[in-house]
Amino acid sequence: MSERIFNFSAGPAILPEVVLKRAQEDLWNVENSGIGVCEHSHRGAAFTKIIEQAEARCRELAQIPQEYKILFLTGGASSQFFQIPMNFLKSGETADYVVTGSWSKKAVKEAQAFGEVHIAASTEEDNFSRIPDSSEVSWSENPTYAHFTSNNTIAGTQWAKEPEVAQGVPLICDASSDIFSRPIDVTRYDMIYCGAQKNLGPAGVTLVIIREDLIEKGADNLPTMLQYRTHAKANSLYNTPPTLPIYLMGEVFQWILDLGGLEAMAEKNQKKAQIIYDYLDQSNAFRAVAQEGSRSLMNICFRGPDEETEKDVIAKATENGFSGLKGHRSVGGLRASVYNAFPEAGCQALVDFLKDYENNL
Amino acid sequence: MSERIFNFSAGPAILPEVVLKRAQEDLWNVENSGIGVCEHSHRGAAFTKIIEQAEARCRELAQIPQEYKILFLTGGASSQFFQIPMNFLKSGETADYVVTGSWSKKAVKEAQAFGEVHIAASTEEDNFSRIPDSSEVSWSENPTYAHFTSNNTIAGTQWAKEPEVAQGVPLICDASSDIFSRPIDVTRYDMIYCGAQKNLGPAGVTLVIIREDLIEKGADNLPTMLQYRTHAKANSLYNTPPTLPIYLMGEVFQWILDLGGLEAMAEKNQKKAQIIYDYLDQSNAFRAVAQEGSRSLMNICFRGPDEETEKDVIAKATENGFSGLKGHRSVGGLRASVYNAFPEAGCQALVDFLKDYENNL
Repeated sequence: MSERIFNFSAGPAILPEVVLKRAQEDLWNVENSGIGVCEHSHRGAAFTKIIEQAEARCRELAQIPQEYKILFLTGGASSQFFQIPMNFLKSGETADYVVTGSWSKKAVKEAQAFGEVHIAASTEEDNFSRIPDSSEVSWSENPTYAHFTSNNTIAGTQWAKEPEVAQGVPLICDASSDIFSRPIDVTRYDMIYCGAQKNLGPAGVTLVIIREDLIEKGADNLPTMLQYRTHAKANSLYNTPPTLPIYLMGEVFQWILDLGGLEAMAEKNQKKAQIIYDYLDQSNAFRAVAQEGSRSLMNICFRGPDEETEKDVIAKATENGFSGLKGHRSVGGLRASVYNAFPEAGCQALVDFLKDYENNL
Repeated sequence: MSERIFNFSAGPAILPEVVLKRAQEDLWNVENSGIGVCEHSHRGAAFTKIIEQAEARCRELAQIPQEYKILFLTGGASSQFFQIPMNFLKSGETADYVVTGSWSKKAVKEAQAFGEVHIAASTEEDNFSRIPDSSEVSWSENPTYAHFTSNNTIAGTQWAKEPEVAQGVPLICDASSDIFSRPIDVTRYDMIYCGAQKNLGPAGVTLVIIREDLIEKGADNLPTMLQYRTHAKANSLYNTPPTLPIYLMGEVFQWILDLGGLEAMAEKNQKKAQIIYDYLDQSNAFRAVAQEGSRSLMNICFRGPDEETEKDVIAKATENGFSGLKGHRSVGGLRASVYNAFPEAGCQALVDFLKDYENNL
């Protein structure tokens, strides 16, 4: 086995090594079936077990009640941006969106084609460097649903807790970049969706956790593949699902369970981020971008003294075996994405490297 | 490495062993980057090379001219069923469909929500046991496009050659189950699409080969993700694509190139199918379902003397290390799917097994 390096990629992102090792074996021959995991029919016994296990593990991890369906779809969060309003937002109705970054804005843009969008709050004036305070969030009178983005990869902010909505208003969350990084009270949501490729697996599968009564409210005059009920009724097997990504996601779920579940995961993530933020807070060369109270534990965005130095830091970091530290192209700077599978040792190693760099400035 | 068995699955289906072995290594560390293939950012250098190579190999394999875009999408052929009419078929316009099986029928159903569908031919009266003769195909006067399914997995039939359409009528083909199993003159088509999971890779990526001028004709008031131009402009990187399935597809393309390309692939596939059809044609116990001249080289559907015997054959075949021989649940019988990666030795072994079985009847 050749050496691996510290991979701070914002997504697709690092996966647990134990999952990769298992996948190497299962690609060739899964469960002693004589057939590799991605060569099994999606309707055969081997894959039926895989998808049922993935669902059961997901349900166990977040204690998801039976009135929620767990769907394995494709098209990423970007497809959910239109599929949600296409299903739920009728012309003349209003949906509320809280805008905390580029992804929220993209979700708004797609929704506007189907109905009214009310911006309940936006922190764009502050370059999305913070999550709005609850006092700033002003919901419309009777929204069809309320939507927010729990973690913002580009600005490096994260909601400490989901926003409060009026009773009866479905709360929908794009949790692509912090899903299962900490405990979540699913009963406060009507729908949670995410691409897998940050915290849960490889790119190519979209996890949707959705209340059955919300599914039933969906428009029924849409293409078959775009109705949530199609996939709910067929347990995500209406058509051939992305079997290999679903398998990998199921293995990541098991890895989190084996670690002790979401509480244990949160403790690890808290500790990892703290190592980096603690350094940044006392550094004279580097500083965190997000405001205190809004800081993401997943994407730690920071700046150096100037752009030249930032470039140099990234170049030297790359030489030293750190990958993926460049900030998003729309904002620049540096970003350390430390999702679930990223090891604590990598956070410490990054801080040691930055300290050294700073000392030599 | 544990032993593998003969996998006749209709899809997801067998992959080349050389591809699986390479993937085992690359999952851990691809191109000595210190990072596994599904952990690289889709915008980084490693994946950029992977997707560019996949496209270049695809273009080389089928000599695809520059005026065609090669897109790597998700959602399977089932999503193309609605995405094609949603983009191209306006209310009041007519699209022509040739119906040769269940998948064609599903495509028709989705199209009917957007405009008129004219059934140019159907072989449903013959249980889809044949492909219509060109004299039976009656196109409408000025169709927006013409659609057909090149291979039919359930009935086991395959077009020997694409149907002729009037000049200027875009020809669109669902080639999910025989793509790149033989040479194809792409210039006769305006769009070819397929799920990867039969001939080209794992489930989770949809290959779309489409003329640029057809892309431009698409409606521009659709959700961003549903417009072909979105993915064409961004070279399939508008959002995070299914990186691992794309990587595997690229490796399968290379495997076909290494074998000698589509001519060599066709020769192998011809020989493999012939071994099984030759046996069936002289057997007193088993017979092919598809009519001569319409027989699929990919899915060889056959019947035994009665359903009890068929069940027994499948059970005994399973004991003997043959998997996936059960016919589709909608039609029963037996089916040997012998896609690109299925080895000739498996065809011979199946015939030996069936001969033995017949001799003991």
